[in-house]
Amino acid sequence: MNKNAQKLISGLVKGEQLYEGKAKKIFATNNPDLVIIDYKDDATAFNGEKKGQIESKGVLNNSIATGLFELLEKKGIKTHFVAKLSDREMLCRKVSIVPLEVITRNVAAGSFSKRLAVAEGTALKTTVFEISYKDDALGDPLINDYHAVAIGAATWKELKTIYKMTDKINQILSAFFWDRGIKLIDFKLEFGKTADGAILLADEISPDTCRFWDAKTNEKLDKDRFRRDLGNVQEAYVEIFNRISK
Amino acid sequence: MNKNAQKLISGLVKGEQLYEGKAKKIFATNNPDLVIIDYKDDATAFNGEKKGQIESKGVLNNSIATGLFELLEKKGIKTHFVAKLSDREMLCRKVSIVPLEVITRNVAAGSFSKRLAVAEGTALKTTVFEISYKDDALGDPLINDYHAVAIGAATWKELKTIYKMTDKINQILSAFFWDRGIKLIDFKLEFGKTADGAILLADEISPDTCRFWDAKTNEKLDKDRFRRDLGNVQEAYVEIFNRISK
Ligand SMILES: Nc1ncnc2c1ncn2[C@@H]1O[C@H](COP(=O)(O)OP(=O)(O)OP(=O)(O)O)[C@@H](O)[C@H]1O
Ligand SMILES: Nc1ncnc2c1ncn2[C@@H]1O[C@H](COP(=O)(O)OP(=O)(O)OP(=O)(O)O)[C@@H](O)[C@H]1O
Ligand SMILES: [Mg+2]
Ligand SMILES: [Mg+2]
Repeated sequence: MNKNAQKLISGLVKGEQLYEGKAKKIFATNNPDLVIIDYKDDATAFNGEKKGQIESKGVLNNSIATGLFELLEKKGIKTHFVAKLSDREMLCRKVSIVPLEVITRNVAAGSFSKRLAVAEGTALKTTVFEISYKDDALGDPLINDYHAVAIGAATWKELKTIYKMTDKINQILSAFFWDRGIKLIDFKLEFGKTADGAILLADEISPDTCRFWDAKTNEKLDKDRFRRDLGNVQEAYVEIFNRISK
Repeated sequence: MNKNAQKLISGLVKGEQLYEGKAKKIFATNNPDLVIIDYKDDATAFNGEKKGQIESKGVLNNSIATGLFELLEKKGIKTHFVAKLSDREMLCRKVSIVPLEVITRNVAAGSFSKRLAVAEGTALKTTVFEISYKDDALGDPLINDYHAVAIGAATWKELKTIYKMTDKINQILSAFFWDRGIKLIDFKLEFGKTADGAILLADEISPDTCRFWDAKTNEKLDKDRFRRDLGNVQEAYVEIFNRISK
């Protein structure tokens, strides 16, 4: 932990719960610029239709996300991450979330494969970036940049920054996982704005929000094991944790 | 009709039917570079689920499309249009259709309003351009530029040309209809490629493919009258024909 983070933690007091999501709880602190993100074991899929628990997922995802945020910070990406506080808790800069899910696809899978009838695992002629409008009632619909600007979800300038950061994050994470025998198939990011308008990578990066395939066997090592009842769900999260810890 | 078109028509023989779509038939001619587009009275909506007929629609749409293609050609847009041959027939350059529906939205309506819960008629912070993948079996899904390139539906260069042409077409048509007391709410275009790779505006422009609202009353003067059982369907097409003919 760096000195700046140590200073922010000393005297920190956990406050009231601000939000309970499907996978995490957000708590206020006595510092108005900081929140504590508390990872749960709850797992959901298909916009909350399927519900379950994955033992120790919160502990594993907190460790995995922490490791990846530290990696990205080291490589020059601005993130909300401040420090890991405990098994399940991460201290983060409080941001106002840009209501977009920013998805990067290196290989066809999931909703892309379904929408366009392209078999999972198919190589793509270009890396695909896509955005969905973060709105549970609407089912997080796919949109394009014009839609995002037309409804005021983001400005052109914000989108430009977000795509530039996402492209760099994809390069960093793809190389990192490749070195550990894992193909980064696709992943979802969320970005937030600080009070002074800076864009930070926020939320989490974990097997809940990425597709990881073993580079040799193509075995799925992510939430698809839960979505599709493939068994060995916890084992997959542990495997990702172990490979990152190497 | 210009001299070049007259030359192409002299000696032209209508050949076999190449395709019967929901609203038009396409016929070969003795000139391999030319097709005859034959407008039907059939009307469909919701990806073919709703079916009906609108009396004289074929005649009206052929006249409307002809008038608009002539306008666009005069303003420097390259289109497939060669000449009006008869009440229901248009002579066109044969193209291979780029499998995209290119939609321009000046005001919220239709699928945009539904997808994003934005009331019809709402002004937008920016003109919206969007593309769907032309595939009936998939339901013509909304996609973005990365998707189009990733699956080989278009190249980046083709997309750039298509968006540039679409923007210009929107400016020309919006001004033209505004002068005739009509708001051009949104519209769908299709583009095609000639053998030498040139991109031409193809298909049709008509009340089947545009939303037209009366500028004073906001009365709908387009296929929404059929889709939504609003009555006076033919009258709306006649009204558009009359205003264009002024
Ligand atoms: N640094 C941050 N400051 C404020 N909010 C954040 C921050 N990072 C993430 N969030 C938000 O906190 C919530 C995390 O909870 P969780 O991921 O469980 O939510 P969720 O069930 O996915 O629901 P949704 O993301 O649709 O709100 C998300 O709403 C996320 O956007
Ligand atoms: N100049 C052209 N050369 C070749 N094909 C064309 C040309 N202009 C339009 N087309 C194609 O001809 C068909 C016109 O028929 P219609 O509009 O009735 O089809 P549709 O029922 O809408 O079906 P779809 O557009 O999905 O094929 C369309 O497939 C259109 O893409
Ligand atoms: Mg979430
Ligand atoms: Mg058509």
